[in-house]
Amino acid sequence: MASTFGKALKFSIFGESHGRAIGGVADGFPPGEKIDETELARFLARRKPGQKGTTPRRESDRIEILSGVYRGKTTGAPLALLIENRNTRSADYEALQDVPRPGHADLAALLRYGESADRRGGGHFSGRLTAPLTAFGGIAKQILERRSVFIGAHLAAAGTISDAPFDAVSPTREALLAPGEKSFPVHDDAAGTAMQKAIFSAAKAGDSLGGIVECCALGFPEGIGTPMFDRIECRLAQLLFGIPAVRGVEFGNGFGAAALSGSENNDPFVRKGKKIVTASNRHGGALGGISSGMPILFRVAFKPTPSIAAEQKSVDLRTGKTAKLCVAGRHDPCVAVRAVPVVEAAAALVLLDLLLSEKKVVF
Amino acid sequence: MASTFGKALKFSIFGESHGRAIGGVADGFPPGEKIDETELARFLARRKPGQKGTTPRRESDRIEILSGVYRGKTTGAPLALLIENRNTRSADYEALQDVPRPGHADLAALLRYGESADRRGGGHFSGRLTAPLTAFGGIAKQILERRSVFIGAHLAAAGTISDAPFDAVSPTREALLAPGEKSFPVHDDAAGTAMQKAIFSAAKAGDSLGGIVECCALGFPEGIGTPMFDRIECRLAQLLFGIPAVRGVEFGNGFGAAALSGSENNDPFVRKGKKIVTASNRHGGALGGISSGMPILFRVAFKPTPSIAAEQKSVDLRTGKTAKLCVAGRHDPCVAVRAVPVVEAAAALVLLDLLLSEKKVVF
Amino acid sequence: MASTFGKALKFSIFGESHGRAIGGVADGFPPGEKIDETELARFLARRKPGQKGTTPRRESDRIEILSGVYRGKTTGAPLALLIENRNTRSADYEALQDVPRPGHADLAALLRYGESADRRGGGHFSGRLTAPLTAFGGIAKQILERRSVFIGAHLAAAGTISDAPFDAVSPTREALLAPGEKSFPVHDDAAGTAMQKAIFSAAKAGDSLGGIVECCALGFPEGIGTPMFDRIECRLAQLLFGIPAVRGVEFGNGFGAAALSGSENNDPFVRKGKKIVTASNRHGGALGGISSGMPILFRVAFKPTPSIAAEQKSVDLRTGKTAKLCVAGRHDPCVAVRAVPVVEAAAALVLLDLLLSEKKVVF
Amino acid sequence: MASTFGKALKFSIFGESHGRAIGGVADGFPPGEKIDETELARFLARRKPGQKGTTPRRESDRIEILSGVYRGKTTGAPLALLIENRNTRSADYEALQDVPRPGHADLAALLRYGESADRRGGGHFSGRLTAPLTAFGGIAKQILERRSVFIGAHLAAAGTISDAPFDAVSPTREALLAPGEKSFPVHDDAAGTAMQKAIFSAAKAGDSLGGIVECCALGFPEGIGTPMFDRIECRLAQLLFGIPAVRGVEFGNGFGAAALSGSENNDPFVRKGKKIVTASNRHGGALGGISSGMPILFRVAFKPTPSIAAEQKSVDLRTGKTAKLCVAGRHDPCVAVRAVPVVEAAAALVLLDLLLSEKKVVF
Repeated sequence: MASTFGKALKFSIFGESHGRAIGGVADGFPPGEKIDETELARFLARRKPGQKGTTPRRESDRIEILSGVYRGKTTGAPLALLIENRNTRSADYEALQDVPRPGHADLAALLRYGESADRRGGGHFSGRLTAPLTAFGGIAKQILERRSVFIGAHLAAAGTISDAPFDAVSPTREALLAPGEKSFPVHDDAAGTAMQKAIFSAAKAGDSLGGIVECCALGFPEGIGTPMFDRIECRLAQLLFGIPAVRGVEFGNGFGAAALSGSENNDPFVRKGKKIVTASNRHGGALGGISSGMPILFRVAFKPTPSIAAEQKSVDLRTGKTAKLCVAGRHDPCVAVRAVPVVEAAAALVLLDLLLSEKKVVF
Repeated sequence: MASTFGKALKFSIFGESHGRAIGGVADGFPPGEKIDETELARFLARRKPGQKGTTPRRESDRIEILSGVYRGKTTGAPLALLIENRNTRSADYEALQDVPRPGHADLAALLRYGESADRRGGGHFSGRLTAPLTAFGGIAKQILERRSVFIGAHLAAAGTISDAPFDAVSPTREALLAPGEKSFPVHDDAAGTAMQKAIFSAAKAGDSLGGIVECCALGFPEGIGTPMFDRIECRLAQLLFGIPAVRGVEFGNGFGAAALSGSENNDPFVRKGKKIVTASNRHGGALGGISSGMPILFRVAFKPTPSIAAEQKSVDLRTGKTAKLCVAGRHDPCVAVRAVPVVEAAAALVLLDLLLSEKKVVF
Repeated sequence: MASTFGKALKFSIFGESHGRAIGGVADGFPPGEKIDETELARFLARRKPGQKGTTPRRESDRIEILSGVYRGKTTGAPLALLIENRNTRSADYEALQDVPRPGHADLAALLRYGESADRRGGGHFSGRLTAPLTAFGGIAKQILERRSVFIGAHLAAAGTISDAPFDAVSPTREALLAPGEKSFPVHDDAAGTAMQKAIFSAAKAGDSLGGIVECCALGFPEGIGTPMFDRIECRLAQLLFGIPAVRGVEFGNGFGAAALSGSENNDPFVRKGKKIVTASNRHGGALGGISSGMPILFRVAFKPTPSIAAEQKSVDLRTGKTAKLCVAGRHDPCVAVRAVPVVEAAAALVLLDLLLSEKKVVF
Repeated sequence: MASTFGKALKFSIFGESHGRAIGGVADGFPPGEKIDETELARFLARRKPGQKGTTPRRESDRIEILSGVYRGKTTGAPLALLIENRNTRSADYEALQDVPRPGHADLAALLRYGESADRRGGGHFSGRLTAPLTAFGGIAKQILERRSVFIGAHLAAAGTISDAPFDAVSPTREALLAPGEKSFPVHDDAAGTAMQKAIFSAAKAGDSLGGIVECCALGFPEGIGTPMFDRIECRLAQLLFGIPAVRGVEFGNGFGAAALSGSENNDPFVRKGKKIVTASNRHGGALGGISSGMPILFRVAFKPTPSIAAEQKSVDLRTGKTAKLCVAGRHDPCVAVRAVPVVEAAAALVLLDLLLSEKKVVF
């Protein structure tokens, strides 16, 4: 398995949904960086289940830092962290062992790893594995913020209901971070209320909803990145597609750009004080894979939670006969909601990795 | 720069648009694989400019294999190939040196690499660098086809005009490969004619058009891939975003899945002979990052060619004053057209790399 | 820091000598492999301090497997393990903080990581970090032994006293594993007794001794490896030099070969049943970086433990004045003794990684 | 095959001894670095055959830079170079195809890659592949020298005859570079004459000799490197063992340290102006894998050229019968002689890679 990511900042995630613990090791955080554990806990709380519109499963998600931090600061040595698994109810899943859940990795895992795979609660495939990723991202965010790089995200859409987008050209830091500070991560609270209604009625019908997360990074220095296979977009997309349920990633105008003409999609260059910037930001902050100095903007599509209470068709692996399936257990009716901080974390990790690989930025 | 990609099959691309030559080295092609040079040339011809709706620049794109092939077969040693640069007209670009082209990497390259970067024709950022990538992909395609894995792509959209999509569940090999054998790579020739009309009128107006390429891999074995950061989607997305002008990548229902409910988006499992398959293919052939045995389906959004003859606003780097710019030179009015084989090549390289990393498949 | 190693089998080590815990994550152990925890504990006990001729510090070294193992078998998911730090006496080291120990990384760590590095007991530089490495190696050994690959090592020299070497051509499995089963890991017990005497008299004089570990891998398949930078020797050397105190690595005749002529050093090929083998084994089991099918043989030189009670010269970092230093704390008078299983572990990890990267071997 | 090496500076080598051309691609040279082609040619000439004591085969070794250099300076884009193969006499080798040469990779290559491997002249295993490596190293040396890092090597031993060693503590830049400027790379010309005599009498007897190359890097900044698996020693050893015929690598006192006591082997710290240095340099410039600021010193053991004219025993692969073999062709009687600049090149590439990975050094 390749549960390892990054270059200057490498991290590795381990654990299974119902195992003893989950966690990770991050190799490359610069030494001497203060870690604000309260802030980190607050950030992690944002992906915690048990909020409105998320799974009732209560994860403590208490993070224990095992190494790499001494007297409150990073040492430069690998930072290992641990999250104990509590309140797991494997019983919910025993029944599923022989009937693969549609839209899930159950069957794929069996084909790939055979009988010995731990498939309880999705095992290593579980969305729960995003907790250590989010923790590392939270640390990366603190390091970036000290260098005036700020990352925010919001739920741009749930099902067919949309939130107001980020200001692509000159978002304020406040507007950027506002959705993350709300119990439901949107700009427009009216839209948020409508989204929650839609999510709950879907849940009530034993169903679920998809959604879109939009993310923006403000203050990322210009001239960072490389052409070819390590463009900012390449790195971000690789990690973002590593988040369970992600089906699409687009930058700037994204798929919309395909329907435009060059004169509509190009961003004219203009002067702004000593710097040269673009008057609009349809490119999403990266040209030729290199940061332009404009806000980095991208959108991530999440499929609806595949675990639904409504009856579905599958096949019983023992008998080979068609089987009806209702997925019990405690699931998010809309994974995109909790995914908002996960996307921010992924962005923070990739952008910090890029800065650390870059000679011009001194740490 | 990270112009190197892959794990079991590593490749590295070099060259500048107006330099002495471009090429690449691929490390990991299995030994003993016959290379059909005629077939390879035919494949490369598909991305060659000078076709209807593409740039008049005539690139010979004659490929010279320098190593790794002996008596017509791969040796297992690194395969190096070379494409001489001919018929370059740097003069077209001299004027641009001081006025960055909107939508291009000119300014980013300057910020990143400084004055010493070779910016003629985009230098290492040029779309021309996709030629060696396509060549390696063409070799990978031949190796995959010998193992009954077939990859096809078509121009799913140009501007606002769409082609008929692939059959997501059971495309025939013929239907899969048909668009690639036409002078204009679509299923529906009427749509193709309309697309070409739209492209030409855009070009005539000194403008360009964006487009979408849809790609499908048939016969890829089930149970290949890994969860987390090396999912099939992660690997494909990383390489696809390495193709110039790509702004979005989506798998299966992609962004469309965000607007659906779980019951609409899940694919029920059914039996088909001894195998278990999905009745529909909204997931796009990968569940949990692992191949499901269904066709692998994804779409890639290309922005309109940023180089347009129409006048645009930019800034003169010497004077710092606003400058008007008309991009001369020979450019594709719709890069997506020539990108079709490039997308196939990228898919072939990633899928072969995955198979080579996988113990179950014997080479 | 790059505390990550491997390709098909990647592992990452974390922790500090006096931190909360040490451990690691290994990504790529094949699924379905039984882990014999008793055997693993016995293997780890071999590097445990508190034996004759080793440090009196008692490490519990109780290993806790956090993930990747389910019902006693590997799942294919990352295997994380933890070893709590107990019985640490940081007080011993407080004094050293300002006076770097000769032969140690104290000053280098300060130069590299600054004040925030955790330097207690060497921090991340500590030999204690070889415990998780040895644990992963012990698991790799079990997997290899199931495929009839056996790895043994012995203390070939301590100071100026030498043990009898391995039979380079056809060692028996018994002879290979014998030293590891003794309380002092040598072939010739008389030599072993002399070595222990020498080690103790050195310790008594407040001094320490260097040593050489010889390692042999039996039954490793022929034709595994690659030329250039991934030769078997390259991989082994990279990991072996990652063990603290290693100053030299040589294969087969090693440095001795430099003094020979080709006719003395070449190994003639002869037939042995259906196979072609070499009559002698001066090459050490690898030709052109690829396994020849003969036993893989190498020697690793360990410097004497730098921590000695005898008075040494150093500099006080606060005053900049010359300082006398006597290193208190509990140290091995000859690290090479405990290093024997660590070298076996390193060999097992590299060889398993090579087999996993190799299509011919099916797991 | 893994013919790719490096992190911040990645390079990849391709080609076969008797193929169309050999070369490589280096990805990561910093932009704006002037390349002195005359100096580079002079450096490459040092590994050229046809000198006293080397093979009469005349390689043009004319290097053609294909990309990554514009107006005499690196651009930051991948630097590709090509060396045409001329004056190859495959006929010499045809006979060997069926009778593997003792001490060579012929049989290993066959086992690994099968019949399709290009085994003429050793194919990709040939020592000729060190030419592009040396070229990249020559460029790295120029970049390092501009930052006052100087690398020199000499033939420390040929067979049983030794040269005077480097001054380990404070070698002058002149003494460091002197051997490289001589036709025979030693400090002590009397020793050099004796070595050449020994080499020639070996050659005359149809035999060959081994040797040792000692290398020293002066002016490398302190505090560069990391503990664990990326120590300076790990990186250097991995690349050095990638040079054909290398059987051993040691740093500082190396294997000699194994026979010493801690008080004999430790280097006391002393003040030198504002810096803290070691009074002696038995550690070889790296403590805990991190540069100490002292000269980096290591020795590399080369086995005698396996290709000898004297009759040797082998097996005919067709008949399976014992076969007598006399290796015709043009071979170095002592590969270590030509290896001196190759070792310097390898050191330069690793040290530059380390500096480029290091935030503190600005390029």
